[in-house]
Amino acid sequence: MEEFSLIDHFLRPLALAPEALGLRDDAALLASRPGHRLVVSADMLQAGVHFFADDPPDAIAQKALRVNLSDLAAMGAEPYGYFLCLGLPEGMDETWLRAFCDGLSADQATYGITLLGGDTTRTHGPLSLSLTVMGWVPEGQALHRMGARPGDQLCVSGTLGDAALGLIERPSAAHARYLRPLPRLSLGTALRGVATAAMDISDGLVQDAGHLASASGVGLRMEAARVPLSMAVRDAIAEGRFTLAQVLTGGDDYELLFTLPPDIALPPETTCIGEVTTSPGLQVVDASGHPMHFARPGYRHRWEASS
Amino acid sequence: MEEFSLIDHFLRPLALAPEALGLRDDAALLASRPGHRLVVSADMLQAGVHFFADDPPDAIAQKALRVNLSDLAAMGAEPYGYFLCLGLPEGMDETWLRAFCDGLSADQATYGITLLGGDTTRTHGPLSLSLTVMGWVPEGQALHRMGARPGDQLCVSGTLGDAALGLIERPSAAHARYLRPLPRLSLGTALRGVATAAMDISDGLVQDAGHLASASGVGLRMEAARVPLSMAVRDAIAEGRFTLAQVLTGGDDYELLFTLPPDIALPPETTCIGEVTTSPGLQVVDASGHPMHFARPGYRHRWEASS
Repeated sequence: MEEFSLIDHFLRPLALAPEALGLRDDAALLASRPGHRLVVSADMLQAGVHFFADDPPDAIAQKALRVNLSDLAAMGAEPYGYFLCLGLPEGMDETWLRAFCDGLSADQATYGITLLGGDTTRTHGPLSLSLTVMGWVPEGQALHRMGARPGDQLCVSGTLGDAALGLIERPSAAHARYLRPLPRLSLGTALRGVATAAMDISDGLVQDAGHLASASGVGLRMEAARVPLSMAVRDAIAEGRFTLAQVLTGGDDYELLFTLPPDIALPPETTCIGEVTTSPGLQVVDASGHPMHFARPGYRHRWEASS
Repeated sequence: MEEFSLIDHFLRPLALAPEALGLRDDAALLASRPGHRLVVSADMLQAGVHFFADDPPDAIAQKALRVNLSDLAAMGAEPYGYFLCLGLPEGMDETWLRAFCDGLSADQATYGITLLGGDTTRTHGPLSLSLTVMGWVPEGQALHRMGARPGDQLCVSGTLGDAALGLIERPSAAHARYLRPLPRLSLGTALRGVATAAMDISDGLVQDAGHLASASGVGLRMEAARVPLSMAVRDAIAEGRFTLAQVLTGGDDYELLFTLPPDIALPPETTCIGEVTTSPGLQVVDASGHPMHFARPGYRHRWEASS
């Protein structure tokens, strides 16, 4: 397997839009869309950090795409296309690459996106992926993390904690949520002009809610008992295999966290879990109204400095 | 050192344009530029493949930016901004990060670009960088690899082989060319509406010229004796430390290869090295007019498939 045949056989068939120039030029050439802004999100995923090297290759591809699509959803954007940089270790065979690209192909159809360009390189480390994903949002209608106002409802989509449970219990129904997040794109566009603030929950609800509070310059009061849980997560908590704290601080949910004015009805499959307050910071209370504290509010990358 | 303080202390000061949203949102929000197309190039660089882990951190940052800027130059684009994904191994200290970001900052000033977004993660492998760089080109004026016509002049900018020599002779003046390529942005914009085809030379003149010939559906006849050489490369060849074949097939030149109609005068600091022909493929001839052959026409990433 060699760089140019990899591009010919696997990547070019994914890049059919004219602006990709058949992956034959030095760059892609994108037209603008009148009345819209281009929303751009870039994420890097590393084997052993964001996924396991032996996860199914199509799931690795789809997770990489979907974590970026989730960022577009959080901005209220419609997906458009993506750039893929692929750092491949020795020993990647064609079967792996075929499955990886089949995963991209399936998600291109699901989400209406196309490969626009990118790069393939060797790496002496583990598999390394970087995607830059683009979408469109009508001028003036993008959702932001700032904008939450005291009195607003604090809301989340779907159920939380499934991916964090799926990370420690493989295989399981929850593991599917870890492998393949479901970006909330329809909800994101429905929230345009309605939500006062929005973001996606990627690194744990408590930590990410703190970022929303900080960006908006407000406080948030969250009632842990109102956080929506799937049956699988309820059962796992009831059986002592999982805790509510793990739900609230575990990563990889890729649901939307957003605020709505008090008089606005909640969209389908969303839940009000608290409210926006004037006192800065995040307060999480348990079913009895007592404050909850967390040693580790969410997932963070840390680097131990060498001496 | 932790993810959010890294962003606060080192990256946010590089992201002052309003469309970066202070790196506080889920994505960047780019306005379009009327009458222009957005030119987008994405490249991944891995320590041990594209640079040495112990290269100066500011040079690593600048090389990553400049190889992408060279792609913009090849399309005739003016630089606009970039997204940076940074996969950091354990043991990266603040001194390293400070120098790396100082390199970005200096090049932002040099090239009139700004950080628009990105991601920072841990990696269990070597340092891994991925940049997506954007520029603007007036509608209908982008340069492409296709378009070369028989009878056109085949031209290159600058001198070739310096970086390939610099890779094997450290330290040296040539090594500076390896560490910090000089993207030919002014030449790229000057070639708009003039050059019939253009690309940047990143993986070796012979290999890249073959790509240009193939994209244009033409042949190229190149005279090796006309390839412009610096004094350092001439001396190295004269002293037997380097060969003309290494010049013609070595990577990392980041000069422009382009074709001009026969009646057009060459821009400054460019050299005609041959012509476009009708017979498909690339023919390289030596000073006596004899065809030259190369075991390895340029740099390619290869993966040995595991059994």
